[in-house]
Amino acid sequence: MSDTTGKTITCKAAVCWAAGEPLKLETVQVEPPRANEVRIKILHTGICHTDEYTRSGNDPEGLFPVILGHEGGGVVESIGEGVTSVQVGDHVIPLYTAECRECKFCKSGKTNLCGKVRATQGKGVMPDGSSRFKVDGKPVHHFMGTSTFSQYTVVADVSVVAVDKKAPLDKVCLLGCAITTSWGAVVKQDGIKGSNVAVFGVGAIGLGVINTANVVGASRIIAVDTNPDKESWAKKLGATEFVNPKELPEGKKIQDHLIDITDGGLDFTFDCTGNVHVMRSALEACHKGWGVSTVIGVAAAGQEISTRPFQLVTGRTWRGSAFGGVKGRTEMPTLVKDYMDGKIKIDEYVTHTQKLDNINGGFKDMHAGECIRCVVDMS
Amino acid sequence: MSDTTGKTITCKAAVCWAAGEPLKLETVQVEPPRANEVRIKILHTGICHTDEYTRSGNDPEGLFPVILGHEGGGVVESIGEGVTSVQVGDHVIPLYTAECRECKFCKSGKTNLCGKVRATQGKGVMPDGSSRFKVDGKPVHHFMGTSTFSQYTVVADVSVVAVDKKAPLDKVCLLGCAITTSWGAVVKQDGIKGSNVAVFGVGAIGLGVINTANVVGASRIIAVDTNPDKESWAKKLGATEFVNPKELPEGKKIQDHLIDITDGGLDFTFDCTGNVHVMRSALEACHKGWGVSTVIGVAAAGQEISTRPFQLVTGRTWRGSAFGGVKGRTEMPTLVKDYMDGKIKIDEYVTHTQKLDNINGGFKDMHAGECIRCVVDMS
Ligand SMILES: NC(=O)c1ccc[n+]([C@@H]2O[C@H](COP(=O)([O-])OP(=O)(O)OC[C@H]3O[C@@H](n4cnc5c(N)ncnc54)[C@H](O)[C@@H]3O)[C@@H](O)[C@H]2O)c1
Ligand SMILES: NC(=O)c1ccc[n+]([C@@H]2O[C@H](COP(=O)([O-])OP(=O)(O)OC[C@H]3O[C@@H](n4cnc5c(N)ncnc54)[C@H](O)[C@@H]3O)[C@@H](O)[C@H]2O)c1
Repeated sequence: MSDTTGKTITCKAAVCWAAGEPLKLETVQVEPPRANEVRIKILHTGICHTDEYTRSGNDPEGLFPVILGHEGGGVVESIGEGVTSVQVGDHVIPLYTAECRECKFCKSGKTNLCGKVRATQGKGVMPDGSSRFKVDGKPVHHFMGTSTFSQYTVVADVSVVAVDKKAPLDKVCLLGCAITTSWGAVVKQDGIKGSNVAVFGVGAIGLGVINTANVVGASRIIAVDTNPDKESWAKKLGATEFVNPKELPEGKKIQDHLIDITDGGLDFTFDCTGNVHVMRSALEACHKGWGVSTVIGVAAAGQEISTRPFQLVTGRTWRGSAFGGVKGRTEMPTLVKDYMDGKIKIDEYVTHTQKLDNINGGFKDMHAGECIRCVVDMS
Repeated sequence: MSDTTGKTITCKAAVCWAAGEPLKLETVQVEPPRANEVRIKILHTGICHTDEYTRSGNDPEGLFPVILGHEGGGVVESIGEGVTSVQVGDHVIPLYTAECRECKFCKSGKTNLCGKVRATQGKGVMPDGSSRFKVDGKPVHHFMGTSTFSQYTVVADVSVVAVDKKAPLDKVCLLGCAITTSWGAVVKQDGIKGSNVAVFGVGAIGLGVINTANVVGASRIIAVDTNPDKESWAKKLGATEFVNPKELPEGKKIQDHLIDITDGGLDFTFDCTGNVHVMRSALEACHKGWGVSTVIGVAAAGQEISTRPFQLVTGRTWRGSAFGGVKGRTEMPTLVKDYMDGKIKIDEYVTHTQKLDNINGGFKDMHAGECIRCVVDMS
């Protein structure tokens, strides 16, 4: 029991007051956790494109003011009534994809998309409909059920998982989104071993896909990125080839080039760009008869993917993956162990670090081509 | 050995001379089969939408003059050098999806889309690049490697399968396309048993999907068709419900209605219309997290399917099926046996019959809402 238990905590948080504005460091009041809620002292957090998507105002469902952030790691400060899954002092990773183990989705055994807190999470509030954050007495919205850009945050008990205390939180915080997303998208797809794979987009997600495909035993891993600087990154993580679509002969489509160099197309492709045109290329680069394309990238609002249905009728499959299909509470401890055992790479991704008071610098880093992930020290 | 072996046969065939024209009954010369070819006396043939699609001129790859037809049954009249898979006198079904057992596709174990004769088949000729059909000395194109609208046809030995002589060819000819297509699309999809299924389009294909889903043990089968007369058909073959999208309240989308009445959407949907807007509805009617939509319908040239990629990222899968994923030479004998054992329905589909000299009447039948399949007696 810390002496803050049951009390409102005053701390620093980066608040986004309105769409398109930079984050502003504010003094924020964080209420104690109510029943089935957990208050966490956040120590580190990554910055992901989804944070920027909402900050920029491009997300039509964005709510303001808001405390963004969903790729964090911290320590449980206190727990509300009825919480049994974590204890005070546990090292934890907040989960934007909850796992209640009770809803239709959790019980289906077919998906990680828990339905329990989805509706309130989308409305920027806790499951009881209210916020735990206030600045000058004014409520501030939660984000993705996690809001890791605050020194203290409150999450639902189904939205957090305890991990090994020996794991460095400034690294395993990336399991809160990027690493887990890419790991799961590959590991949960049967048949990658011995197959040829193309990965479109060599950011944190694409690199994770490359790395995992390599670990799983793909025979050929072709990385595709319009940024030539990504070639060395891709190869470092296990890509066997790199193709820059901009360097193809005039008028040559990337999918046609990939079909040429693979004698008919890829067994598996992954979109890790969020660009709907790339998603189409990734599907059409698949081998007739059996190629499977997985959409991981998140497209801008209102954008649509399209293709001729003949692509599907002749045996290609178009699917997607959210948070890698990973059930966070059940699977995260093993992922952390795999990282500790050297089976999952994380350290390599942390190319930039920032202090909380320069979190906007972290957003700038993200836009720079050479940044894979910027991790923010929240202390 | 019949006395026509090695000789050109003169017989009747329905020739389509140019895009959009009705078929014309002609006296046609059918050359003897060359090496690895089989000449078949066609006894019965169904008429399918793909025949009409090419006849109408809507298929940009259509070639004329041509002898259409790909849903036939007949008897082997003679075989060319090197043919071992069928013998003279065998009852056979021509296969527009060949099975060579040697190409990358056949050997993959993942698809039925054999590559062996694909290129020449698409060019309306036999694998050696020439046609076996002549009218008044002028060559006429083959169609889909089968050309069953002729009393005699020549096919590649990889494009034909012998079946039980006791099976009535005026029925099992439909295994050449419609029945096999719908049977395979369901049987080769894991998980239908105990699931809820929606079938868009209640023609021969949709009815086959309904029937097979019922046999396989789907718990709920919702048939969707804009033609109210299809309700009784759908229920006869095993649908538990029927929905006419035209009868929904103004502005209500069919996918939203289906999601409402199934508490979140379907486990499996099938497009059996060929309409790209319906294909989208079928995908979007799938349950978040696990719904799988299969495109069976063939869209008009140039048409595209589209959706928001979020539909895939949140766990829906878009796939397709050609000839039901069935390897004709390997699997057809079992399908015929299943029909003989009463496990696969075929007789119900034959609502209309025609004589060869009124084959154009069969095309008219097909456009009539109450026709499921018209089978043409070629004698
Ligand atoms: N499905 C999920 O659960 C999930 C989770 C996290 C992130 N995401 C999404 O994954 C995507 C990738 O995230 P990230 O952090 O790796 O992003 P990133 O910006 O770091 O990387 C994207 C890469 O794509 C490359 N690129 C851009 N346009 C391209 C094109 N036309 N062809 C080839 N390459 C191109 C860029 O050069 C860059 O290297 C984003 O859309 C993000 O929102 C999805
Ligand atoms: N993939 C394959 O291997 C394969 C093989 C054979 C046929 N096909 C295709 O399958 C499709 C169906 O073939 P069929 O012979 O059953 O056709 P059909 O014309 O007999 O049946 C189509 C049905 O769809 C209904 N329909 C039309 N528009 C609709 C809408 N907007 N909503 C709901 N229902 C609608 C019609 O009323 C009709 O009952 C065709 O596109 C055909 O080319 C594909």
